[in-house]
Amino acid sequence: MTPSAAPDRAPLAVTMGEPAGIGGEVALKAWLRRGELPPFLVIDDADRLQRIAHELRIDVPVRTVTTPTEAPNIFSEALPVLHQPLPVKSVAGRPIPENAPAVVASIESAVRLARSGAAAAVVTNPISKEALYGCGFTFPGHTEFLGALAGDNATPVMMLACAELRVVPVTIHVSLAEAIRTLDTDRIVDAATVTDNALKRDFGIAQPLLAIAGLNPHAGEGGAMGDEDAEIVAPAVAELRARGIDAFGPAPPDTLFAPAARSGYDAAICMYHDQALIPLKTLDFDGGVNVTLGLPFVRTSPGHGTAFDIAGTGRAREASLVAALRMAAAIAAHRAAARM
Amino acid sequence: MTPSAAPDRAPLAVTMGEPAGIGGEVALKAWLRRGELPPFLVIDDADRLQRIAHELRIDVPVRTVTTPTEAPNIFSEALPVLHQPLPVKSVAGRPIPENAPAVVASIESAVRLARSGAAAAVVTNPISKEALYGCGFTFPGHTEFLGALAGDNATPVMMLACAELRVVPVTIHVSLAEAIRTLDTDRIVDAATVTDNALKRDFGIAQPLLAIAGLNPHAGEGGAMGDEDAEIVAPAVAELRARGIDAFGPAPPDTLFAPAARSGYDAAICMYHDQALIPLKTLDFDGGVNVTLGLPFVRTSPGHGTAFDIAGTGRAREASLVAALRMAAAIAAHRAAARM
Repeated sequence: MTPSAAPDRAPLAVTMGEPAGIGGEVALKAWLRRGELPPFLVIDDADRLQRIAHELRIDVPVRTVTTPTEAPNIFSEALPVLHQPLPVKSVAGRPIPENAPAVVASIESAVRLARSGAAAAVVTNPISKEALYGCGFTFPGHTEFLGALAGDNATPVMMLACAELRVVPVTIHVSLAEAIRTLDTDRIVDAATVTDNALKRDFGIAQPLLAIAGLNPHAGEGGAMGDEDAEIVAPAVAELRARGIDAFGPAPPDTLFAPAARSGYDAAICMYHDQALIPLKTLDFDGGVNVTLGLPFVRTSPGHGTAFDIAGTGRAREASLVAALRMAAAIAAHRAAARM
Repeated sequence: MTPSAAPDRAPLAVTMGEPAGIGGEVALKAWLRRGELPPFLVIDDADRLQRIAHELRIDVPVRTVTTPTEAPNIFSEALPVLHQPLPVKSVAGRPIPENAPAVVASIESAVRLARSGAAAAVVTNPISKEALYGCGFTFPGHTEFLGALAGDNATPVMMLACAELRVVPVTIHVSLAEAIRTLDTDRIVDAATVTDNALKRDFGIAQPLLAIAGLNPHAGEGGAMGDEDAEIVAPAVAELRARGIDAFGPAPPDTLFAPAARSGYDAAICMYHDQALIPLKTLDFDGGVNVTLGLPFVRTSPGHGTAFDIAGTGRAREASLVAALRMAAAIAAHRAAARM
């Protein structure tokens, strides 16, 4: 199969994620809503999923498939699983080092299927980085690992999206002081350029408008509250416009996410983690989707983490995984249409 | 009159604010909703308000009063105005230096009335600090000026509130780098202690619960993203609990304002301006109210600024001033009840 093989008929590939987390539970619950969803398969331990379904009384028949092509045909009757065996039985809330290689293998398989066209997209369940570091996993997170799997030309950029807002943090998992220290014009321009391309190619927005958030309160208010907005952010906005990208800013961060403001642009490029994540989660804690832009394959993920505190209780909600599945299918369809 | 004079019969005193801004317009529009509001008077130039009403076709009879006691009696028929003449006719969008002393005098009068009990509370329209600096006004903002007017024992703390959320920024109008540099345990404890007192006295919450936000992403994630949460914020939480104040934290900032989280506490103590302001304005741009805690009189303000860009167009919305008037009356009633 080649990447041009009709991706709208290929299933989405959902990874196992950390088996001590809520990934299995939300995958099972998502399948209960299969009537609203494109076909997907899960790359997980089939016995484990069956056990979770039984223990949490989620009425889902689990069926092992040997190739992704079987998945769409059985999807209406059972959850298709590409069996990725776990060496040790998983325990809710407690990661087991021996299982880490299987977690990584599930991600690698999903990427392989998506790159070959056998899967339409990768949808990853949350992992625990700490649990994987023991098995030689050295990446700060999913996004960077997927970037490495994608090879040299990938420039992975994390976007978080809900129905009302799309945000892209330029700096991510560093302290706030480090975010300020490492912020520079090139990083803003690079993240915004990847975002502009992705909005066109993946979201079907012909002429995207980007809001570039300021760093400081009131975007520095003419230097009264910091120089970074004038010295780092404003030149990035100028460079983007010089490249023909429609962007405005540095925008005062506090008003940028208010209802009237956020309906006026297609994505906000944010200077630090919480500038992006606070408004997103304020609006929509359950439905937020993490999308990796700039990869040669489609990848989305629920916005939540492993949620060890509620794993195994049956209280996990599938809303974010459902949103991630829908968004992955929509992006795959846009890419397929663009190739025709 | 003494401060114990029945404040529920005294009117609220609304200041002029910057006359080039939207203060006059929103005061007139608020009076149109007088059926839903406690009686208020405006300390402004009566001719100016009449002119705005005429020009913007806001059907409001303006009537000058000489003492606040007249205001409640005429409030149903006309907007009561304590005349504060402007030396120069105001122009929408363009502050005039000669008018600055009258802007300051309006605030001083409102505070005097509130301190004497002749007004139930001070509700301030937005000022432009830049426009006032020429006349010797040296304060970073309204809050600090009111603190100075209140005298030695005042510890003014800014809270922003909407129906769903109350936030208190510990650092405010400084650059983000400066906010990190100047954040310390004592400041967090002081702001939280004033907030705890105010929630009891002014909001009638018998046992308030405070969320103390972390500074860094994920509240530092055990030191992986900054030490400040462990070294500065966590000791503040411990000190507050030692004082018998119900507080938790350092809380991961991104999830703290999600719907389920924010319904669980009474106020969030935030480490920097935008950590507080972004979620507030994401939820409710129009209805947000600025409340100054820790003053010997009641003071609220709409959450918006002078809005020079729309001043004089008739497009200003009164929602935030209406919310500020209601909140001021509610706080005044709680304080009056506590005195009985």
